[in-house]
Amino acid sequence: MNTFGQRLRLTSFGESHGPAIGGVLDGFPAGVKVDFDLVRRALEARSPRGIAGATTRREADEPEFLSGIYRCVTLGTPIAFVICNTDARSSDYDDIADAYRPNHADYTYEAKYGIRDPRGGGRASARETAVRVVAGAFAEMMLAPMGVTVSAEVAETGNPADDTDTYGGIVQCTVSGLPAGIGEPVFGKLQSQLAAAMMSIPAVKGFDYGDGFAAAASTGKAQLDEFYADAPDNPHDRRIRTRTNHSGGIQGGISNGMPVTMRIALKPIATIPGLEVATVGSDGGQRNLRMKGRHDRSALPRAVAVVRAMALLTVADAIIQNAMP
Amino acid sequence: MNTFGQRLRLTSFGESHGPAIGGVLDGFPAGVKVDFDLVRRALEARSPRGIAGATTRREADEPEFLSGIYRCVTLGTPIAFVICNTDARSSDYDDIADAYRPNHADYTYEAKYGIRDPRGGGRASARETAVRVVAGAFAEMMLAPMGVTVSAEVAETGNPADDTDTYGGIVQCTVSGLPAGIGEPVFGKLQSQLAAAMMSIPAVKGFDYGDGFAAAASTGKAQLDEFYADAPDNPHDRRIRTRTNHSGGIQGGISNGMPVTMRIALKPIATIPGLEVATVGSDGGQRNLRMKGRHDRSALPRAVAVVRAMALLTVADAIIQNAMP
Amino acid sequence: MNTFGQRLRLTSFGESHGPAIGGVLDGFPAGVKVDFDLVRRALEARSPRGIAGATTRREADEPEFLSGIYRCVTLGTPIAFVICNTDARSSDYDDIADAYRPNHADYTYEAKYGIRDPRGGGRASARETAVRVVAGAFAEMMLAPMGVTVSAEVAETGNPADDTDTYGGIVQCTVSGLPAGIGEPVFGKLQSQLAAAMMSIPAVKGFDYGDGFAAAASTGKAQLDEFYADAPDNPHDRRIRTRTNHSGGIQGGISNGMPVTMRIALKPIATIPGLEVATVGSDGGQRNLRMKGRHDRSALPRAVAVVRAMALLTVADAIIQNAMP
Amino acid sequence: MNTFGQRLRLTSFGESHGPAIGGVLDGFPAGVKVDFDLVRRALEARSPRGIAGATTRREADEPEFLSGIYRCVTLGTPIAFVICNTDARSSDYDDIADAYRPNHADYTYEAKYGIRDPRGGGRASARETAVRVVAGAFAEMMLAPMGVTVSAEVAETGNPADDTDTYGGIVQCTVSGLPAGIGEPVFGKLQSQLAAAMMSIPAVKGFDYGDGFAAAASTGKAQLDEFYADAPDNPHDRRIRTRTNHSGGIQGGISNGMPVTMRIALKPIATIPGLEVATVGSDGGQRNLRMKGRHDRSALPRAVAVVRAMALLTVADAIIQNAMP
Repeated sequence: MNTFGQRLRLTSFGESHGPAIGGVLDGFPAGVKVDFDLVRRALEARSPRGIAGATTRREADEPEFLSGIYRCVTLGTPIAFVICNTDARSSDYDDIADAYRPNHADYTYEAKYGIRDPRGGGRASARETAVRVVAGAFAEMMLAPMGVTVSAEVAETGNPADDTDTYGGIVQCTVSGLPAGIGEPVFGKLQSQLAAAMMSIPAVKGFDYGDGFAAAASTGKAQLDEFYADAPDNPHDRRIRTRTNHSGGIQGGISNGMPVTMRIALKPIATIPGLEVATVGSDGGQRNLRMKGRHDRSALPRAVAVVRAMALLTVADAIIQNAMP
Repeated sequence: MNTFGQRLRLTSFGESHGPAIGGVLDGFPAGVKVDFDLVRRALEARSPRGIAGATTRREADEPEFLSGIYRCVTLGTPIAFVICNTDARSSDYDDIADAYRPNHADYTYEAKYGIRDPRGGGRASARETAVRVVAGAFAEMMLAPMGVTVSAEVAETGNPADDTDTYGGIVQCTVSGLPAGIGEPVFGKLQSQLAAAMMSIPAVKGFDYGDGFAAAASTGKAQLDEFYADAPDNPHDRRIRTRTNHSGGIQGGISNGMPVTMRIALKPIATIPGLEVATVGSDGGQRNLRMKGRHDRSALPRAVAVVRAMALLTVADAIIQNAMP
Repeated sequence: MNTFGQRLRLTSFGESHGPAIGGVLDGFPAGVKVDFDLVRRALEARSPRGIAGATTRREADEPEFLSGIYRCVTLGTPIAFVICNTDARSSDYDDIADAYRPNHADYTYEAKYGIRDPRGGGRASARETAVRVVAGAFAEMMLAPMGVTVSAEVAETGNPADDTDTYGGIVQCTVSGLPAGIGEPVFGKLQSQLAAAMMSIPAVKGFDYGDGFAAAASTGKAQLDEFYADAPDNPHDRRIRTRTNHSGGIQGGISNGMPVTMRIALKPIATIPGLEVATVGSDGGQRNLRMKGRHDRSALPRAVAVVRAMALLTVADAIIQNAMP
Repeated sequence: MNTFGQRLRLTSFGESHGPAIGGVLDGFPAGVKVDFDLVRRALEARSPRGIAGATTRREADEPEFLSGIYRCVTLGTPIAFVICNTDARSSDYDDIADAYRPNHADYTYEAKYGIRDPRGGGRASARETAVRVVAGAFAEMMLAPMGVTVSAEVAETGNPADDTDTYGGIVQCTVSGLPAGIGEPVFGKLQSQLAAAMMSIPAVKGFDYGDGFAAAASTGKAQLDEFYADAPDNPHDRRIRTRTNHSGGIQGGISNGMPVTMRIALKPIATIPGLEVATVGSDGGQRNLRMKGRHDRSALPRAVAVVRAMALLTVADAIIQNAMP
């Protein structure tokens, strides 16, 4: 499945070293003025430029929009966009065409499909996340006028000091301004949709929301989020709030009007340039492999933009799912 | 969305104190002999019987099968089943019809639908998980002949000693025998499907797989799962393995043939019988509420059966998704 | 796929001679007062009672509602219902357990599943259409307050005079009051959704809308539906209409505010009681078979209620699909 | 919904006079050698070249493939392709920006979205069918090695002699070599999937299969398709056939191994160049409009290629849907 979302749906395509990556965003509302500058800034936040230890691959990341927009306004029809791959250096991958890099998707893709594009990880490359960032910017254009905003930042950094190796960390993400009543019961719980979104990001190993894993060591009393009425005297402007937010803005799978808070754990980048590792070749034989390619030292700084994009897409979709005539 | 799964699809229905809960399992293979005893044992593992501190509500939990089975063999058509609600004591909920219990779905359901069934949490009750357990047993009937097994157990218990209150904990779950190549690329990653499944369980606050959150504090070198060929001399029986399993059996969203390991964090039960809490009523006014109803002291022991059921359903669905002509 | 609809979704289950048939209607709006009498009348319109030549099987067709309704109002959660099979006479089908009835689904179900329930056609029986009629009545409860109504009647009757045999005919169906703008572009055209709905009814062989097959022999000029403004002088109440309605209320897959008109062709019932036919047995050998079972002489009178139900469901779903926040 | 199919899914995008149209084909099997010449020939069959009375718009219709193919073999990942719009003459549409052309989607798109791209019909243009033809060629690459072939031809032509106007007609389509057992029960019947596919083609007004509308005037006895065993003496090679094929290769929604036959009715093209018609403008006022633009005299010759493509896609999808592990 290369499609994300129920009603706001992003279909993503592209291999790392193929002609292009891109996406088709279907179900986006008509009549929204497109803020191309917002798209550009979102892509820049994901770009390796200015990030110490980031890959030296330099992609222009200029999305070309092919449809769904007329005179800078969305039409309600699919918004297709393409980002060309210009700085692919496929020769780096010659010697892995016949050997599986550990902790990569080389072996599993071949087990599933019987074939793979070995150049730069092919479809499994994190390069595809640029597509999510473009679509996330559109979700932001829809959410901003509703007062819904999403922020994300690095909450914990793994081992940046030890520069012989790669490191991971934790990204924190908060959705603010989401009205109460968004999310679906039982299997479509908002936290289920968010978890599926975040776990689909390369290198993500864990997800929790509200007090999350810490809640498992807590007590029911300590987790209580008592309700209060924000302006009980004015019957036309009373909003129900909780004094604390251990719940992370979601109760029973549906938003309660408080900020939705979540954490996303990222493992260290699996490619450690220069390291020789034991592996197996396509012929089934044992061999050693020295890792090459241009890679980040950590996915963390750039993942912030991707986490944010996925939260934007998920929340925009959940709001559209909730619409009834 | 009250339907789980892409090709093996469970549609669940029912309120806690309505006439019945139940489900329709569509896409299940034809020709499978139904092991009714397996269904019964799975439901018993979820039942409060014999669990200290569990609810005193006693439901027979006898599923009645209405379709999809002929002479104890599945037909390939939808398997519908109903579990009657017999021990509902709705009067316990009279005083919450007009007040929102903190940390429950009372307020959010009303915010979403403008109406709710206040008896026993209605649709948001954990009672619906019995439906998942029945469906999970069918998934087990499909997986067992393939050599795929799922185990789950309590890995960490929150605060059981402090008996004034409720507690949570962590459930660990392992899928063994899953062949390499199961899972979908990009948005349908196996960990995404598993996370969505687990986060849909009431009281679950977090999910990780493999080294999970711990991986965020590790280094790339420490996370390496080097490959080796299990029987490299025999070309007809060589299997590729990893020496370690930090990856948790999944690479690039697709299974690599190693055990799939994951952890699920559960918060403490939100209802603390007898405790008086501040809340807001349907009329928007502030009020106090003393919590009632028959509830578990922890969702943990019973959640083990539900986690296992959701893993079984997810993996069975992923295997069917992977099938090509 | 035993689920119909995108956002208003009916999951149907049940074999003709199993314990019960039934359905789960998910995505139905909350807060709708349930008109149980409307359900009863819709089922009566489909019932064989009072129809000359109809099956002598007498089912009470009393749906039992299990969920989604509280104090006679819908909750927004799945509405599950069960209709018990009480008058099944399975012995009629003993001799077809090993032989395929011509023009029935016996052989094709076995080809697909390797197994079938031979009693009364199993899952392929038209008995499952009772489930559609119940769900259609709910769609009607949603549509009526919007001023959307659906009518259906027999437009052409095949050969009722020749009483040695069975006959078919054509049902005409009209959706009135549908506002302009309902339907989706390209693959989700309203006529696509309606055609899929109608072609899923047993015995239906053809579908057209507007001038339909007759349009194929017409000219562009004769098909023109010129627009006019209903009340051009009042800018606040002007509605755009067409003077003619060759288009059948749909242009480019989207409703234009005119009545949606369509025709549905039904073949004669395939079971001709007493007739001996050549067929093949499960063992692959040639044999003769004398057809038995209680059947209608024509699906036509009862199909009217089913066509109407499917139009109601399709239109209600299309209206919900069209909703945006 | 701009996506067609359940498991083999084509997401289509593009407006007639936008930068490009294109599609993303997801779920296509890995390891298929791409026959680019087949794609080219399929597009040529849809092209206006050499068809008398066809539009003078000349598009190169050269699809550029962006992903999913490596060294001319499919990867199992999404196959994205783009066809640039090069010969758009948008000035033809200046005077319809504020007036609704009768029998076109101008008004309905504006009613749905509140905005439309007026140039060349925008998203509603038949130009998008080129995308279907490309995808259909891939379906053909998958089906051909299985022995499944699809043919389509004009069966009836409306009024070609009367050259003052436009005409419609009927396309006949046959799927041969489809094994028994393909199609889904109840709502996913093969005829439902085919009808939805065909009705989504611009200008299509009707669909039937087997004896279709003619069956409505026939008798059950005349419609009988008696079974026989093709080679009853050889137990390893016996195939069940029917002596006649009134059923059109489908019984109970599932293929029976006989050719699947269907008819598709097309209305005349709605644009009659030079004709002045009454209509309404965006301001709600009455006005006259003289129709312009480059258009075919009939959709019929080119529709043959599109009907064939949709049959190929539907059947390939149904075969993949049927796959079980």
